Amino acid sequence: MQEIEVRATRGPYKIVVGESLYGKELVQMLEKLGPYNQLVLVSHPRILELYGSDMLESLNCHLDPGVKPVVFTFPEGEQNKNISTLEQGYRYFLDNGVGRKAILLAFGGGVVGDLGGYLAASYLRGIRYIQLPTTLMAMVDSGIGGKVGVDLPGAKNAVGAFYQPEAVISSIDVLKSLDLREVKSGMAEVAKYGFLYDERLLDGDWQLESLADIKNLEWLISRCADLKSMIVAIDELDINGERAILNYGHTFGHALESSTSYNLFRHGEAIAIGMMMAAKVAELAHIAALGLYQSHSRVLRPLLGGLSISDEVDTEEIMKDMERDKKREAGLRFVLLKEINQPCLVDSPSKEVVRSAIQEVIDDLKGD
Amino acid sequence: MQEIEVRATRGPYKIVVGESLYGKELVQMLEKLGPYNQLVLVSHPRILELYGSDMLESLNCHLDPGVKPVVFTFPEGEQNKNISTLEQGYRYFLDNGVGRKAILLAFGGGVVGDLGGYLAASYLRGIRYIQLPTTLMAMVDSGIGGKVGVDLPGAKNAVGAFYQPEAVISSIDVLKSLDLREVKSGMAEVAKYGFLYDERLLDGDWQLESLADIKNLEWLISRCADLKSMIVAIDELDINGERAILNYGHTFGHALESSTSYNLFRHGEAIAIGMMMAAKVAELAHIAALGLYQSHSRVLRPLLGGLSISDEVDTEEIMKDMERDKKREAGLRFVLLKEINQPCLVDSPSKEVVRSAIQEVIDDLKGD
Repeated sequence: MQEIEVRATRGPYKIVVGESLYGKELVQMLEKLGPYNQLVLVSHPRILELYGSDMLESLNCHLDPGVKPVVFTFPEGEQNKNISTLEQGYRYFLDNGVGRKAILLAFGGGVVGDLGGYLAASYLRGIRYIQLPTTLMAMVDSGIGGKVGVDLPGAKNAVGAFYQPEAVISSIDVLKSLDLREVKSGMAEVAKYGFLYDERLLDGDWQLESLADIKNLEWLISRCADLKSMIVAIDELDINGERAILNYGHTFGHALESSTSYNLFRHGEAIAIGMMMAAKVAELAHIAALGLYQSHSRVLRPLLGGLSISDEVDTEEIMKDMERDKKREAGLRFVLLKEINQPCLVDSPSKEVVRSAIQEVIDDLKGD
Repeated sequence: MQEIEVRATRGPYKIVVGESLYGKELVQMLEKLGPYNQLVLVSHPRILELYGSDMLESLNCHLDPGVKPVVFTFPEGEQNKNISTLEQGYRYFLDNGVGRKAILLAFGGGVVGDLGGYLAASYLRGIRYIQLPTTLMAMVDSGIGGKVGVDLPGAKNAVGAFYQPEAVISSIDVLKSLDLREVKSGMAEVAKYGFLYDERLLDGDWQLESLADIKNLEWLISRCADLKSMIVAIDELDINGERAILNYGHTFGHALESSTSYNLFRHGEAIAIGMMMAAKVAELAHIAALGLYQSHSRVLRPLLGGLSISDEVDTEEIMKDMERDKKREAGLRFVLLKEINQPCLVDSPSKEVVRSAIQEVIDDLKGD
C-alpha cells in the first residue's frame, strides 16, 4: 500500500493506493475524519451491482447503527454529467434529509468523481467527500486535485469548483472489471505523466492485451498520483501555469471529443491522439527535434487499438472548436515538449502549423 | 467615505461605503484588480433602468475599448433565485464568450448578490466578482462575507458556496429608490447587529417615515459591515459557531418565510419577527430577564409597519419547518440573548417553550 500526501490550501489530505481498500480501510479512514452523522454514496448502477453490496455490508457492520448510507445513482456516461443530474442529486439529498455533517463517497470513474465531487462542493455550500475511483483514468488523474463540475451543452466542465476531497482511496482490485479499451484509455493519462515528467512511466510494454500486462500497477498509479499532487500543491487554482502543463494533449483532445459529439472516442483515446498532435506541432514549429512524434506514436498507437478514424474527424471542426476554447480561456496556450520531460507553454503557434499537424496525424492514423 | 478590510482566507478585500461610488470609484477599483478582458454586469431590469445607463456610460468611457460589458438580467424576487436562472446565466455567458479572465459585477439587492455571486463562483470553476449592493439589507449583511447560492424548492440557499468577492462597493445614494417597506426591512438587519454586538445601533428613531429619518446612514452601514467582516475573518466557513451567531432571528425567520411561501413577508420583516420570537424564548426559558422582549418590540414593531399577521401564519407549520431545518443542519442551535449584546448558542430549548414563544408573539402582533 502506498500513501501520498496532497498539500492543499484547506489542509493536507491523503491518497492511498493498494488492494482491497473499500472495506476496512475505508471505514478506518472515515473514523479518522471526525464526527459525521450520514454517509452518501454517489455511484452508477453497474459499479453498485459489482461492488455495492460488499461495500455497504462492510460500512453497515462497522458503522454506528444510526448512520445509514443514502445511495444516489445515475447512469454512466459524459452525457449525464450535467445540471439536470445535479438537480436530481440535490433533491434526493433533501428528500433523504442529508445534512451539513454528512460525508459523501464518490464511487466510480471520472464522471462520478466530477459530478459527485461537485454535489459535495455545492450542496449546503459544501459537505465533506472522499474520492473512491474505479477506473485507471480516475486513479491517476481526474480523481486527484479537487477539480469537480459538470458540462454545459458544447462546453465541457464549464460549471464547477476547486473543492478538495478529504481523501482519495484507490483500490486496484476493482480495475479488474474494466474492459480492455477502458484500461488503455487510462494508460493514455499514465503516458501523459511519462512524457511530461518521468520517462520511467514509458518503460512498459504498451501492446496491452489485459490488465495483467501492466507491470507494477501499484507503483505506476502512485507515481502518477505523486506527480499530480506535487503540481496541485504549487498551483491548486490553476493560475500560475504549472497546472496548465497537465493539459498536455487536452486542447486537441477536448476538441476531438467535442467535434465528434463525445461518441467516437473514450477520453483517454482523444488525449492520446491529442498528444500525438502536440508532438507533431512541436516538430513542425521546430520546438522539438524530429523523433518526438515517433516516440509518441510508439507508445500511444497501441492504446488506440482497432479504433478507426472515420470521416467524422475533421480538421476544420477541430480548429473551430479550439477557437471557442481560446475565447473562454482568454488565449489558447499549447503545452508542447522541447523534448521528453521538457514541457513548455507556447502562447500562439502559427495556425498553419497547428492545422497541418492535425491533418498529418489524422492521415497517419487513417493509414493504419 | 469609509473603508473596511475583510481578512478572508484567499486574501483581504475592501468594503467601501460612501456616495456616488458606482462611477469613477468603481472604475478605479477595477483598475486595481489587475488584468481582465471582460466585464459581466448581473442585475435586474428595474435597477438597470434606474442606474444602468449611467453606470455603463461611466464604464465605457473609462475602460479599454476592447472591454465591452456583457449584461445579464433576470426578474426580481426570491422565486427567481433558482437553478433555472443559473442555467440561463451560464448559457448567456457561454454565448457571449465570457472567459476566465472576466470580472462579474453583481448589481442589485440580496437576490442578485446571491445568484450573481454564485454564477461567479461556479462558472468556469470561478471568476472574480464585485458586489455592488443596492439595498440596505445587502449593504449591511448579505453582500458581505461570500455566502452565495440559490434556493431549491422548500430549501432556501440549499445550493451554494463560500466565495469571496474582490470588493464590496456600497453607494448609499442608490438607496433613494427603495420604497419605505424595503428600507424598514433592511433596518431589521441593522437592529440585529445592534442586539448582538453594538447597542449604539439601536439608538435611532425607529418610527421611520423616510430614508431621511435614518441618522448617520453611512456610519450605520459601515459599522454593520465592520462587525460582519470581523465575524467572517474568524469563521469564514461557518464552522466554529461565531458566524452562526449572525443567524439571530433567522431560524424562526426562515420558517416564517417558508411556511408562508415567501409572499407574505419581506426577508427583514420575517427576521424582525424571528428576533422577537427568540427574545420571547430567552425570557420563557429564563435565559434572559424580563424586559428583553419589550426592548425588541420597541425597536422592531415600527419596522413591521402596517403588516397584518394573517391566519396563514401558523405555529405548527413554523415548528414543522424548523424540524426540517434541524435535520439538515444536524441539530437546531438557537441564537439567544442573555441580555442585549450577550449572544449565546443554545442547542435544544424545550419544544414547549419554543411553541409558546411563537404563539405569544403571533398573538401579540395580531393584537395590533
